[in-house]
Amino acid sequence: MPATPHVERHFTAGAAVRDVVIGMADGLTVPFALAAGLSGAIESSGVVVTAGLAEIAAGSIAMGLGGYLAARSDADHYDSERRREEREILDKPEEESEEIEEIFREYGLAEPEVRPLVEALRRRPAAWVDFMMRFELGLEKPRRSRARRSALTIGGAYIAGGLVPLVPYFLVASARDALGWSIAATLVALVAFGYFKGRYTGARPLKSALQTALTGGVAAAAAFLLARLVT
Amino acid sequence: MPATPHVERHFTAGAAVRDVVIGMADGLTVPFALAAGLSGAIESSGVVVTAGLAEIAAGSIAMGLGGYLAARSDADHYDSERRREEREILDKPEEESEEIEEIFREYGLAEPEVRPLVEALRRRPAAWVDFMMRFELGLEKPRRSRARRSALTIGGAYIAGGLVPLVPYFLVASARDALGWSIAATLVALVAFGYFKGRYTGARPLKSALQTALTGGVAAAAAFLLARLVT
Repeated sequence: MPATPHVERHFTAGAAVRDVVIGMADGLTVPFALAAGLSGAIESSGVVVTAGLAEIAAGSIAMGLGGYLAARSDADHYDSERRREEREILDKPEEESEEIEEIFREYGLAEPEVRPLVEALRRRPAAWVDFMMRFELGLEKPRRSRARRSALTIGGAYIAGGLVPLVPYFLVASARDALGWSIAATLVALVAFGYFKGRYTGARPLKSALQTALTGGVAAAAAFLLARLVT
Repeated sequence: MPATPHVERHFTAGAAVRDVVIGMADGLTVPFALAAGLSGAIESSGVVVTAGLAEIAAGSIAMGLGGYLAARSDADHYDSERRREEREILDKPEEESEEIEEIFREYGLAEPEVRPLVEALRRRPAAWVDFMMRFELGLEKPRRSRARRSALTIGGAYIAGGLVPLVPYFLVASARDALGWSIAATLVALVAFGYFKGRYTGARPLKSALQTALTGGVAAAAAFLLARLVT
């Protein structure tokens, strides 16, 4: 399924920033919640570190490789839809012209108002295919070369985010004692991350900071309570 | 940032199926890899079950609540861009008309070919705003009411997927012995899930089945090796 969002004018963040946001949003949340959850059930920081690092490895690969394969699928999907559209324009130009009119009919435009545009597109088959991909199917050409870099950025951001809550468990032997430092470090990181995410994506920074902190906090509290219940 | 992909004609899956796919793709991968990783370092299935359930709680809430907040942000973003576009059409209609021509210039269309369309839109301000939202900004109206149901579907699918690899650890006391059953159960589930995902999203089912199994396998192997290294 297409996972590539449309580019639009007021979106100030570049693709790399976007990948950092995707990876770090989960990286700061899930390993933190897991570590907090285990601290509710297990004494030794060593087990929390082992589980935390295993989670970071699993999560960064699942997100990075998953993102890579999704980007490749998007590109394959685009190419196959494009070949189909090219064939249709050759084989049944009348139906495809009718489809252009249908697109504009949604906006209250009548056939005579659209005809010059339809005729102009019919004289330029390559542009016509581009037009149908974008305006009929809502698909933008995915940049195939970005898949690998995007996967590495997402995975790297997940690792960077996931290490923040684990550092106290490296330094303090008792998981219960490490938990307080882990919560403090991660809440600061979540608020800072949410703030910058809001600034880069055009949302209100303070609202965004509160939302990321809330997500991490609720996830950690649920994991903590569940882990205490089952042990 | 807009996370809502464009609807397109050949996308056969409904929104609910899409949410199940999003949740289950991670739910079948990350708890499985975490359980496998811990089995490389820890003897007792009890610890794996505690960590696995804590991860499922954390991951399902992070994905569900994160998705809910992202959907709400998309809706806010759409509304604010729409108000901005409505103002611009009233305040500087000439510039906005010029922007319509710019959109079509990318497709090799000249001003006379586009003029009837521009003039028709100028006579219908409401349709003009709709047109600019879709074709200039590439934004579709997000369905605000779907955010809650979508969050619950994604979180539920994550939980369902995450329980598959954990069941053997409930039944077998030794983590090493449970690992083999967990791998077998999860690989079957990953292949079946990948196959149906491929069918519903229009990708080749067998390729999709191999890709999901590969992602889960690589993540689990990395988590296993890392957990052995640190203990």
